[in-house]
Amino acid sequence: MEFVSDCLGLNERDRLTIGGADVAELAREFGTPLYLMDEDAVRRNCRAFTGAMSASYPGKWAVAYANKALSCKHLVRVTREEGLYANAAGGGEVYTALKAGMPPEKIIFHGNNKTGEELRLAIGSGILRIVADGPEELRNISRIAAETGRTASVSIRLSPGIEAHTYEVLQTGKLDSKFGVPIETGAAMEAVRLALSLDGIDLYGVHCHIGSQIFEPEPFAMAVDVMAAFMVKVRDELSHTLKELNLGGGYGIRYTSDQRPRGIRESVSATAEAVRAAAEKHNFPLPELVIEPGRGIVAGAGITVYTVGGVKEIPGVRTYVSVDGGMTDNPRYVLYGAQYEITLPERAAEAKTQIVTLAGRCCENELLGKDMPVQPVRAGDLLAVLCTGAYNYSMASNYNRVPRPPVVMVSGGKPFVAVRRETWEDVAGLDN
Amino acid sequence: MEFVSDCLGLNERDRLTIGGADVAELAREFGTPLYLMDEDAVRRNCRAFTGAMSASYPGKWAVAYANKALSCKHLVRVTREEGLYANAAGGGEVYTALKAGMPPEKIIFHGNNKTGEELRLAIGSGILRIVADGPEELRNISRIAAETGRTASVSIRLSPGIEAHTYEVLQTGKLDSKFGVPIETGAAMEAVRLALSLDGIDLYGVHCHIGSQIFEPEPFAMAVDVMAAFMVKVRDELSHTLKELNLGGGYGIRYTSDQRPRGIRESVSATAEAVRAAAEKHNFPLPELVIEPGRGIVAGAGITVYTVGGVKEIPGVRTYVSVDGGMTDNPRYVLYGAQYEITLPERAAEAKTQIVTLAGRCCENELLGKDMPVQPVRAGDLLAVLCTGAYNYSMASNYNRVPRPPVVMVSGGKPFVAVRRETWEDVAGLDN
Repeated sequence: MEFVSDCLGLNERDRLTIGGADVAELAREFGTPLYLMDEDAVRRNCRAFTGAMSASYPGKWAVAYANKALSCKHLVRVTREEGLYANAAGGGEVYTALKAGMPPEKIIFHGNNKTGEELRLAIGSGILRIVADGPEELRNISRIAAETGRTASVSIRLSPGIEAHTYEVLQTGKLDSKFGVPIETGAAMEAVRLALSLDGIDLYGVHCHIGSQIFEPEPFAMAVDVMAAFMVKVRDELSHTLKELNLGGGYGIRYTSDQRPRGIRESVSATAEAVRAAAEKHNFPLPELVIEPGRGIVAGAGITVYTVGGVKEIPGVRTYVSVDGGMTDNPRYVLYGAQYEITLPERAAEAKTQIVTLAGRCCENELLGKDMPVQPVRAGDLLAVLCTGAYNYSMASNYNRVPRPPVVMVSGGKPFVAVRRETWEDVAGLDN
Repeated sequence: MEFVSDCLGLNERDRLTIGGADVAELAREFGTPLYLMDEDAVRRNCRAFTGAMSASYPGKWAVAYANKALSCKHLVRVTREEGLYANAAGGGEVYTALKAGMPPEKIIFHGNNKTGEELRLAIGSGILRIVADGPEELRNISRIAAETGRTASVSIRLSPGIEAHTYEVLQTGKLDSKFGVPIETGAAMEAVRLALSLDGIDLYGVHCHIGSQIFEPEPFAMAVDVMAAFMVKVRDELSHTLKELNLGGGYGIRYTSDQRPRGIRESVSATAEAVRAAAEKHNFPLPELVIEPGRGIVAGAGITVYTVGGVKEIPGVRTYVSVDGGMTDNPRYVLYGAQYEITLPERAAEAKTQIVTLAGRCCENELLGKDMPVQPVRAGDLLAVLCTGAYNYSMASNYNRVPRPPVVMVSGGKPFVAVRRETWEDVAGLDN
């Protein structure tokens, strides 16, 4: 039996396993709803990225895990142990990374609007790099660096005019995005001049992020061409050699069995080769190459386990299966119409002969998915939504004052509670 | 100067006020992002509903505040003081209501999939009513009531085949909804028979909720007709007189100046009159009438105040204004494309001569709104999004590990911190 993710399997009782552990037993032990992650799969994914970089890029490089996909202390420890850097979006992720022992010199701070408090934390703790989103932020960084007597190492986020999605790549004259400084309008070059003129800033490199769920290597290679041309222009016009090229993330993962993203190795190798070739072509020193996968590290390594509350068949219309979670723990269907596969952990080997609509428990007309094949399902069954390791816990809310589920990570078949279950007391804990 | 909500005004310095208090001064005191609520406006809205019911319904009635719109202890106290009952969606809202002193006999428990733990809390604390969503839940209630030796007072949520939105009313043969038991398929009558047959259940009434942001009274009157006909059928076929008719919420509010919902008084009076007329027509005793406004109580009484981080003009494309919040504190734009008005609290009297797109701070291509008129805006300005009292704090998340803003309620011009600001320590507080 083949599952959509390699962290899943069947045991001798024909029950679903994650990282070799019986999902139903874990659900019994920790309750539902429950996020389960295969820590060993997370480590394999980390190694796929670092291995591909190591094998294919002759210059200096780093793989930074984009913590926005799932930020918690244990995952910081795991990614640190695997040699990854931390991409932190927002002060809370910087704080988490520092508290979990990520060395500051391996933290890259992102975001399109960093607050003064966040910049003080980042600059004060001496993190590796701040990726500035525009001129306003460059001025803020300079001011706060001056306050603290430090110099901040900065890259500038550029908007390269390429937007890649799963099925298409757009090249737009002037990219309409809240992020970054557009190259084509001349704003990027102005931002570089500004950064070079400001005290307290060491302008180290440039960054871009072209999209999410990119299945093919070509969009990354297109971005490399645009970014390399810009780096050459900066050298030629301003006599400043940018040392770092950060290409962000976007590596697509397989959410459903019909999806066929290229492997990590192929996409990363093609990107690295494009950077090497561009440097050679322009007679440019090999930049320090950074890539920042988030979803690619964690999405396929996680599942969410629910208990079915009721099954409502509306004859001739559809069958609703209600679970004890919903948009509070997985808002990706209501936000993006995200597609997932589901299975019953205790009958995972049986054929999926029923088509159901998965309803959440919130007082809102919210779903987790429509028209999903599943084994015959009854009230009381466990039900797993697959490939929920990214942007589920991290985007979870307390709507309806529903406590957030715990994140339990399995390593060597043994569970570890990475994030404990929230309680009603916690949820009301900020009320006066 | 007219604002979209009556909680807003201008003071002698031409600055925005909420509940008479200077918004910019509150932002200075409590920081941004900041939810501000006019408690006096909340009380006025409560009284508009109770006053309309009192004036127009000759039977027993209750107005239950739907806490899902914004649940916190202080708001429970305010609504309790105004004579409202509490509609609680989920155990966390029941817990909050009880902790804040709402008498159990004024709590109505909702949701399409209540867990055993939640039902035990509700039945054990003797709350007024459980609104059961279907046969599975009726059986669960009966079982848990038996465990505790209590009898649960239950209404059944019906699906009346009417779906109302701001601009249209649909009457569908079999309503395609995760909520409630359809009347037309016969499932509703079966559920009533089941409830009457189960131990530990006192079947008290029926409930429906036909939609949100309903501007006209007619859809409510249509729902009354369908529900009344069903109550008569139950009496005639099963010799059981249902005592309560709960019509849910859905009363529309004014988010933007071009919207013109009928007043609360007109909508409520028309609904009450429809119930009275239906009872008379069918020679049915006047039911206890319950309505459950949420948005109608709090939405217009709240604003969110941000600090502008940067203004990015992409010539010929659009102008992005970045604020220090985003989908984490207000996910209604990314979820529903919700429309809001904005203003600069410190230049609220000036003309709105600029059209901007409001970008959040999350590492995601998320916005708070497109093409919004505003006064000329610069980095460092305060910016207020209006009418954010409902479904903003309650749906907030910690995406990017962004701490949630505090909720500060103003009464008699004085602020009270109803929910304190979350910290990075709080956000990482569940991590092991």
